[in-house]
Amino acid sequence: MNTLTNRPGQSGTPADASAQGGSDVVLAFDIGGTDMKVGMVHGQLGGGNVEVLDIQRHPTPLDGARSGESVCSRIVELTGEYRAAHPELHITAVGVTVPGIVDEDAGIGVYSANLGWKDFPFTATLTEALGVPVGFGHDVSMAGEAEFRLGAAVGKTDVLILVIGTGIAGAVLCDGRRVVGGGYAGEIGHAMVPAPGGGMAIMESLGSAGAIARRYTEATGTAVAGARQVLELAATGDEAAATVYSDAINALAFSVAQCVSILGTETVVLGGGLSMAGDTLFEPLAARVDELLTFHRRPEYVHAALGENAGLIGSALKARSLRESGTLEVPA
Amino acid sequence: MNTLTNRPGQSGTPADASAQGGSDVVLAFDIGGTDMKVGMVHGQLGGGNVEVLDIQRHPTPLDGARSGESVCSRIVELTGEYRAAHPELHITAVGVTVPGIVDEDAGIGVYSANLGWKDFPFTATLTEALGVPVGFGHDVSMAGEAEFRLGAAVGKTDVLILVIGTGIAGAVLCDGRRVVGGGYAGEIGHAMVPAPGGGMAIMESLGSAGAIARRYTEATGTAVAGARQVLELAATGDEAAATVYSDAINALAFSVAQCVSILGTETVVLGGGLSMAGDTLFEPLAARVDELLTFHRRPEYVHAALGENAGLIGSALKARSLRESGTLEVPA
Repeated sequence: MNTLTNRPGQSGTPADASAQGGSDVVLAFDIGGTDMKVGMVHGQLGGGNVEVLDIQRHPTPLDGARSGESVCSRIVELTGEYRAAHPELHITAVGVTVPGIVDEDAGIGVYSANLGWKDFPFTATLTEALGVPVGFGHDVSMAGEAEFRLGAAVGKTDVLILVIGTGIAGAVLCDGRRVVGGGYAGEIGHAMVPAPGGGMAIMESLGSAGAIARRYTEATGTAVAGARQVLELAATGDEAAATVYSDAINALAFSVAQCVSILGTETVVLGGGLSMAGDTLFEPLAARVDELLTFHRRPEYVHAALGENAGLIGSALKARSLRESGTLEVPA
Repeated sequence: MNTLTNRPGQSGTPADASAQGGSDVVLAFDIGGTDMKVGMVHGQLGGGNVEVLDIQRHPTPLDGARSGESVCSRIVELTGEYRAAHPELHITAVGVTVPGIVDEDAGIGVYSANLGWKDFPFTATLTEALGVPVGFGHDVSMAGEAEFRLGAAVGKTDVLILVIGTGIAGAVLCDGRRVVGGGYAGEIGHAMVPAPGGGMAIMESLGSAGAIARRYTEATGTAVAGARQVLELAATGDEAAATVYSDAINALAFSVAQCVSILGTETVVLGGGLSMAGDTLFEPLAARVDELLTFHRRPEYVHAALGENAGLIGSALKARSLRESGTLEVPA
């Protein structure tokens, strides 16, 4: 049986899910600008023993301002295909994550520059079409929710999650509750930080893996495969690489220290490609944050635990909660 | 009758409280580094019609590491004096605010540099000594709670309160709940911001009323009465004054924009001495914040409504909530 148990970096193939014996699952969709990832989330969502079955990737149907409708139609089609392929499983709820500005409470995709919609009612559209509860949210927020409830931040109350890849996305937990902010919270990648040459810059323009690669190439004229190569060059004494990486650490540390000062953040969960650097990231980051703080408590730093399926799991958690609270009367 | 109805800047004298006709009141104490303010908070705490009666100021009994004990003893004494002076009123709960790091949930004053205590159990000590529920918290957090529930931020869910005086203290509301962060939240005055000459500085070292006066004197050698005088000089074309004030606006705006980016803050409540500058503060601050944001929503700016008694009212709100929830069995 091909199941994924909280392991990142794997794509699924149809599982021999008969081993699950007629269980309830949540079919979860992670809608991206290029493709949409689908998987059946199964297991004790309250207990951390979660599997994502039959992970598939399909192209996202882009249709300009009507992409919301197109995406929902495709979700309905794929739900039918999953039901047909897995008659032994009960898809009792659906999870959907989208990028951009999201109004979770209203179930609306407020705005996505890449996908084109504006104020599209995902939850209402899908609930009507599918007749099951729909757990809807922002992709990184739902990934954060999963890390808070099942992953690296279990038992923590004051957490910042940074997903450091091409850009930087964040999710914030305060006093044990994820901050929504009307869909505007978590845009820490677009907060200002002091720039190396003076002035200010958007945090992710210095701190992201994408920025590290781009800035090294700009500084040296040398193309690199990615941030990992810049870190390797820095380790061998390449001064330009060391400077670019130091700038990234400074930018990340500045934002972490802001959260510690304003919110009393005690745990920093690091995910995304750059987090794979491990101690090469964690140690200088912690040291730089320490320099930026005075009487504040120092946060601990942990790896994200749920990997690239965290968004699927988070939206499934939300869908399951809705189902259990009876928010939608499921048609018989 | 001398009562204060949500009006700042007034000190009370013993009220002819017989007009209150046997009402319940909360006796609230705002403990500062020099003096402690006391007043009886009375009225419809849920409805915004709040009075603070018989406001008195007494020296804070400082006793080094034993200041916690001394302050509690004084609170017990003063409670007896208020009961004797106002036999027609029922002091059914006590509110206490203190500065420093505060663990509200545990009822502990974790640390105060000015007052000297470390991990002092205020709530337990006072509950045992007085036999009534004790609403205990950080001074600015409790003031924020009052503004959220009765003052300038009623009906708002994502709020930053900045109290700009000698220093800068903050309180943050996210999704309708005040952020506690184990007592470490709200230290926005001690967050880093870009410094005018490059590098970084603590936000309140540039943005506070105290910093504006001090930096002008440092720049010019001219003593000033306070920030208000610097703003007046800036309005008459004094370049040093204009630069110092512009630096302050930049520092404040930077921190506001951090909150908007990270938390989706939609309302900024301004209190403290500098907020009296009105449009001279609000307009350049809003303009500068606007420059620091891109796709984010823009916050609105409002005056703090409850003035210098907000802390008393906030701790009274908390005490009243405790009493109504039956958290303490009040001895008959």
